[in-house]
Amino acid sequence: MKIGIAGLGTVGGGVAKALGAHGELLGLRASTPLEVVAVCDRDADKRAQFDAPQKFDDIKALAASNADLIVELIGGENGAAPMLVEAALNAGKHVVTANKAMMARHGARLAALAEQKGRALRFEAAVAGGIPIVKSLRESLMVYGISAVRGILNGTCNYILTQMEATGRSFEDVLKDAQALGYAEADPELDVGGGDTAHKLALLTSLAFGVKPDLDSVAVQGIRNITPEDISFAREFGYRIKLLGIAKKTQAGIDQRVQPAMVKAGTALADVEGVLNGVVVNANEAGPFFFEGRGAGECPTANAVIADIVDIARGNTGSVFGLPADNLLALSAAPTGSASSAYYLRFQVLDVPGVLAEIAGHLAKWRVSIESMIQRGRAPGEAVSIVMITHETKASDVAGALDTISQSANVIAPPCMIPMESK
Amino acid sequence: MKIGIAGLGTVGGGVAKALGAHGELLGLRASTPLEVVAVCDRDADKRAQFDAPQKFDDIKALAASNADLIVELIGGENGAAPMLVEAALNAGKHVVTANKAMMARHGARLAALAEQKGRALRFEAAVAGGIPIVKSLRESLMVYGISAVRGILNGTCNYILTQMEATGRSFEDVLKDAQALGYAEADPELDVGGGDTAHKLALLTSLAFGVKPDLDSVAVQGIRNITPEDISFAREFGYRIKLLGIAKKTQAGIDQRVQPAMVKAGTALADVEGVLNGVVVNANEAGPFFFEGRGAGECPTANAVIADIVDIARGNTGSVFGLPADNLLALSAAPTGSASSAYYLRFQVLDVPGVLAEIAGHLAKWRVSIESMIQRGRAPGEAVSIVMITHETKASDVAGALDTISQSANVIAPPCMIPMESK
Repeated sequence: MKIGIAGLGTVGGGVAKALGAHGELLGLRASTPLEVVAVCDRDADKRAQFDAPQKFDDIKALAASNADLIVELIGGENGAAPMLVEAALNAGKHVVTANKAMMARHGARLAALAEQKGRALRFEAAVAGGIPIVKSLRESLMVYGISAVRGILNGTCNYILTQMEATGRSFEDVLKDAQALGYAEADPELDVGGGDTAHKLALLTSLAFGVKPDLDSVAVQGIRNITPEDISFAREFGYRIKLLGIAKKTQAGIDQRVQPAMVKAGTALADVEGVLNGVVVNANEAGPFFFEGRGAGECPTANAVIADIVDIARGNTGSVFGLPADNLLALSAAPTGSASSAYYLRFQVLDVPGVLAEIAGHLAKWRVSIESMIQRGRAPGEAVSIVMITHETKASDVAGALDTISQSANVIAPPCMIPMESK
Repeated sequence: MKIGIAGLGTVGGGVAKALGAHGELLGLRASTPLEVVAVCDRDADKRAQFDAPQKFDDIKALAASNADLIVELIGGENGAAPMLVEAALNAGKHVVTANKAMMARHGARLAALAEQKGRALRFEAAVAGGIPIVKSLRESLMVYGISAVRGILNGTCNYILTQMEATGRSFEDVLKDAQALGYAEADPELDVGGGDTAHKLALLTSLAFGVKPDLDSVAVQGIRNITPEDISFAREFGYRIKLLGIAKKTQAGIDQRVQPAMVKAGTALADVEGVLNGVVVNANEAGPFFFEGRGAGECPTANAVIADIVDIARGNTGSVFGLPADNLLALSAAPTGSASSAYYLRFQVLDVPGVLAEIAGHLAKWRVSIESMIQRGRAPGEAVSIVMITHETKASDVAGALDTISQSANVIAPPCMIPMESK
């Protein structure tokens, strides 16, 4: 199996290194030798670091090379990455990619092309690093159908939330540390804004429910607004705050959300610490399954890329998303706000008579009923936090109530609303 | 793909039912219709419950039928099960089995036969029910090699230990309840004696380390001697007692053990509750991975069987244990007692002067040093429990010390020794 690698960053280097170090055993597993015949990068210095018979600065040349399989590690939703993947498939080559943005946006089209050409298109490394969640959804957990997938899919966010909890420090402070440690990018928006999780979730949704990846129907909320106070209240109620990607089958359609959620302490997802990733799959009669491992980094990601290469070499070249691309349905999205859950609500209010009655009144008008409440910080004249856990309620009702409440002169900051995910 | 099912018990029924209920989607996933063309059982009443074109009471007839793939659910290390598997492979049929005893004992030979015949032999259902641990070890986690696998692989034992902890009741009492609830067999020995875990461990060891399954080199200890007192001491030290199957690469060879172990509270394995199974895989540079799910029962097991069928139908028919059978090495077992660990030790002693000095003296002679100690129950004249946690020590040294100590007239019961697995 002749391999060409495009994009010679950390992961590309890791793939080449691991194929070198473990090539003999991997070749036995693959039933054929695995050989890197070409590398491709625009950066001459990077190319110089690689020992390969052919070095290209142009993806077209790589796509026209003698490689049987192209590893796409360029990244990016549009541009060079999908151009290379299309060119490679059209040239009759298999493709392995770690590119979640491209697969979330163009996955259905690329899958159809791959299947039309009778070639494999694999993307284990695009979701949750080394955890074999793509393969498990595609090949193992699908027999009885799947009702829900919930995952901690972004190590940066989980690291920040874990550190905020451990130290009591603010989001901004912890983010700066994470950047200094290399756990967060200089521009952290794709991570902390939830976009990266949304890419991964769209792929899991496709695999779990047999639909085309549909990034646009993912409701996305990041972790910027989570305060140390929220985390401390969560602990009081017996919960931890995690940024989850959630995909659920509901009667109204498929509900896909990325949002901070209260996860019950002591459950598997709540115990996913630091930069780790974790995924819960509700597989109907087969029961729930939980997977945990390193979600990023050179070796976990290279492991996923190489596992895909070995699989393809061994002839495991079935449908890209488990079902033939022609049979993937268009995703029928649940309307925004149709999700039902208990919610954590936090209001920052002036400590004046009647403010609680005012809030409670608006909630009641929207049929939001309260299970428990904590009020804290009552020093005369100071701002007060009122925190409530609701009974199960429609998201749109809670949002409606909060909209009205936030207009009150006594409410001095936008209310915070976090679903209780494992109640 | 024409399927023949042998052994029409709970799982066989589940497989037929699920293929009926979900056949259309599964056929799309398999790229070919999946059709049960034959069933086989010695029991005419069971055969009568199935709707299949051909019904056999004889495995030879099934092996000679027009089925392309035989599902072996007869069970048993020897006898009909391996006879059927051999006959089916020799007749050019693929085989899917849930038979851990057969695969642990005859796996290497059957794998060689399957590969010689160019047919698949799959056994996902033999280990940890619905958890795709066989596939993950074979196809996903192997790139950087594996240094250790630790698993809770027997739901009956985990249920009993969880219940003993929750209720403070004795092993015998909880076992009776488990039998009444159907969580334990009338003859529970295979479960509580550790034999079932040993079968599964031998298979995981083979997949993880590229060796032939070697059941005879698994050191096996069950949970009969665990007392509520041990469980309560464990909690005091911040641990929980779990029956683990452990396979580790050591300098002295591969160390395979089934034994009750102290697992640090709050870690993933410690939190595996009730009848669930959980497996930790240490995959070197790719990091540790954790898998949790239902390890037994109709639907989780049928899920694993059908996932194997779909995989084979799709053409994923590589080596049975990941490496070609000819390349599987004979397992080089670490000598008994060569394992190194911290240990929990419990001594039941008479409350007489000098007994602690006596025990401490023997431990010192065997170079066993103590990290912490609890002594409890000191009512004059009563038996006393002395509990210690050692520093890391060779198992054979601890065993040597315990052997001497147990001969003392002041020691009134065999000492208990449990390794601290996640210290």
